[in-house]
Amino acid sequence: MQTPLTPKQQAIAAREAGRTLSGLSSATRAAVLRRVAAALTENAAEILRENAIDVADAAEAVARGEMTTALAARLKLDERKLAKLADGVRDVANQEEPLGKVLSRTELADGLMLQLESAPMGVVMVIFESRPDALPQVASLALRSGNGLLLKGGKEAARSNRVLHRVITQALEPEVPSTCIALVESREEVASLLALDDVIDLVIPRGGNALVSYIQRNTRIPVLGHADGICHVYVDAAADMQKAVRIVVDSKVDYPAACNAMETLLVHEALVGDGRAQILLDALRAAGVRLEGGPRAAQELGLPLTADLHKEWGDLEATVEVVSDLDAAIEHIHTYGSAHTDCVVTEDSACAESFLARVDSACVFHNASTRFADGYRFGLGAEVGISTSRIHARGPVGVEGLLTTRYKLRGQGDTVGPFSAGEREFTHKRLPTTDA
Amino acid sequence: MQTPLTPKQQAIAAREAGRTLSGLSSATRAAVLRRVAAALTENAAEILRENAIDVADAAEAVARGEMTTALAARLKLDERKLAKLADGVRDVANQEEPLGKVLSRTELADGLMLQLESAPMGVVMVIFESRPDALPQVASLALRSGNGLLLKGGKEAARSNRVLHRVITQALEPEVPSTCIALVESREEVASLLALDDVIDLVIPRGGNALVSYIQRNTRIPVLGHADGICHVYVDAAADMQKAVRIVVDSKVDYPAACNAMETLLVHEALVGDGRAQILLDALRAAGVRLEGGPRAAQELGLPLTADLHKEWGDLEATVEVVSDLDAAIEHIHTYGSAHTDCVVTEDSACAESFLARVDSACVFHNASTRFADGYRFGLGAEVGISTSRIHARGPVGVEGLLTTRYKLRGQGDTVGPFSAGEREFTHKRLPTTDA
Repeated sequence: MQTPLTPKQQAIAAREAGRTLSGLSSATRAAVLRRVAAALTENAAEILRENAIDVADAAEAVARGEMTTALAARLKLDERKLAKLADGVRDVANQEEPLGKVLSRTELADGLMLQLESAPMGVVMVIFESRPDALPQVASLALRSGNGLLLKGGKEAARSNRVLHRVITQALEPEVPSTCIALVESREEVASLLALDDVIDLVIPRGGNALVSYIQRNTRIPVLGHADGICHVYVDAAADMQKAVRIVVDSKVDYPAACNAMETLLVHEALVGDGRAQILLDALRAAGVRLEGGPRAAQELGLPLTADLHKEWGDLEATVEVVSDLDAAIEHIHTYGSAHTDCVVTEDSACAESFLARVDSACVFHNASTRFADGYRFGLGAEVGISTSRIHARGPVGVEGLLTTRYKLRGQGDTVGPFSAGEREFTHKRLPTTDA
Repeated sequence: MQTPLTPKQQAIAAREAGRTLSGLSSATRAAVLRRVAAALTENAAEILRENAIDVADAAEAVARGEMTTALAARLKLDERKLAKLADGVRDVANQEEPLGKVLSRTELADGLMLQLESAPMGVVMVIFESRPDALPQVASLALRSGNGLLLKGGKEAARSNRVLHRVITQALEPEVPSTCIALVESREEVASLLALDDVIDLVIPRGGNALVSYIQRNTRIPVLGHADGICHVYVDAAADMQKAVRIVVDSKVDYPAACNAMETLLVHEALVGDGRAQILLDALRAAGVRLEGGPRAAQELGLPLTADLHKEWGDLEATVEVVSDLDAAIEHIHTYGSAHTDCVVTEDSACAESFLARVDSACVFHNASTRFADGYRFGLGAEVGISTSRIHARGPVGVEGLLTTRYKLRGQGDTVGPFSAGEREFTHKRLPTTDA
């Protein structure tokens, strides 16, 4: 048996293999993905057997009080889930080719053609907790987009991850070296992986806030993710109350643990005077939501005063505050929000457009639940993550989060000398990208 | 007189002011830029008076041996340079509006429209050495793109930077708060500015390799820039030798200190046998270039053996190596290059396309000098920098390097509940972006 590679060697091998992968035709990459999908189904018995051991171990850990039942529940795979995962891989195979997409074309000068194209990122590391189903999902996106991949899963899913990784990488050969997708199995802690900024281009944490913010604080590798999701719904004086109630309740209650759930409800002060604010509070309370208030809401709506306006409840709880107008609502969002997703409810289109233009968040919504901020709902296909970074990708991110760009210049022996000497001139003619 | 703000307070104020700025119409932002251009000309006498003091101080520093003449020379402004700077600001005013550009449009469901738009980054910090002309250039790009800006210039240009900053910010009011462009004048060292990752979104170093790599190693703020420019020209067996000589000499000699200058010439082994390699070496030597060789070139072309194949000469010096074929050339570039700009010279279009598809650099060229890798030559208007990062922006970067994106969703009271319940369905209809 070979000495196992260090994570750094794995990353270097994954980059190399990724270059082979991205050199393949789109059809070949899609065919490899279909083989991966088939392998998941064909090896279902073995995958479920290994998974059952993880699940049994987790049950013992729960019994000993070392694991939450929620975490243990997320571990479990079954026939139906595996079939769905295989379908998901086939969907990625059928997706539009992400590589070599022409993003701009310019004739720099006669016979000198510049083209900007999408290209693979290089090596992406995904650190995920519990759910082993993340492994095939992420692997399929990396394969589609020509990237090398390093995977680091949680200990609790070690056996499931190992068998999934083996089944998937066995399906890659011969076209794609199996080193393209590496499972970090050494006892390396996450901290040492985060030091590999010279060989890893992007790290994507898939897990809770604690994991994400730990990673953001402890690496120089760019991180695609978000720690906070403090989303606001601002109900304006000109709101349609039926829409407002619907949106506020859906934003809070549909899935309170989600990052795109509403944490704070802002109400225009006119709604306090005419009793409409009370309708919103009643609707939230009827849906089981416990409310706290900012300074004005505590006073004017009789809510218990909240200790922290920058608060992600993640549960059936919410903050309410009264604001004097749109400007004050925006000011509140900029001060206490996390620039994730914020919504205005109003029938006044000038107010709506002002909110959409001025609120500086990854997603800004008019008359729609914050819960729409999601890769699947946005129609991006598989979601790589939601980013509140302003760099690289922002908001729900699909496969394009795994891509960078490359300039290709095609000349005929051109040099810059004649341009400097005034003998040739740049034309800089923008050309359509479609007939490339 | 007020207590001066700390850099952190300056950054927070710049973000606030940037939000006001980006809320203005395109025409207003352009008008502000034209006022800035006029102010530069109107205040020329005062600007040149202050600059003359910096220049005189620099001359003394040179006399004391504390500054290079090259550095001192870059300090100097004159009427003509100022007029050119003002013209540059007017060009930026006339540029296509960068904000609110619709990048994609999707109908998520009946009446639920999603749009991805370009948006300002937020707060950008530019750290620049010597050249005070960088200040108006960068300021104009920040104003056009709705960003707050923190500027940190070199001590040697302190008076020039101060007067330029005052003249420019005075021209901003009343529409744009003057705090939008802040000059960091406190004695803060660069290190403490680099710690402000909670209030600065992007840092752009404008200066030598030492500055850039110091900044890259010492901040969590994303850095737009590149430390190395180790560019290769690979002359294939099927090269047209006239083109090859022209491109190789231009790539090396046109401006050897530039990051896009050729550092390493790779020649196919067939060129050694038939004497064509010698033609290339003779042409480089005739242009005054001193040559060293990799292991094969040392042996087969009689060149002194180089100590380091990963070497940025930055002067009239270059490395030469012999490679057995295209694969070996690509392998060499991936191993020793810096993924900046690499070129293939060949008449074999399959070889050219394979090189362009496989070489994993920000810019890949066929039959064109590496010196074309430049924002101006690429037709980007003003160049913010050249990035070898794979994140955010890669290659020569224009004003889009100062932009991020934002999703806007316009609904009619839509909630996710009915979709989960199967009562409504997503349509995910991609729409053209042009008639937005």
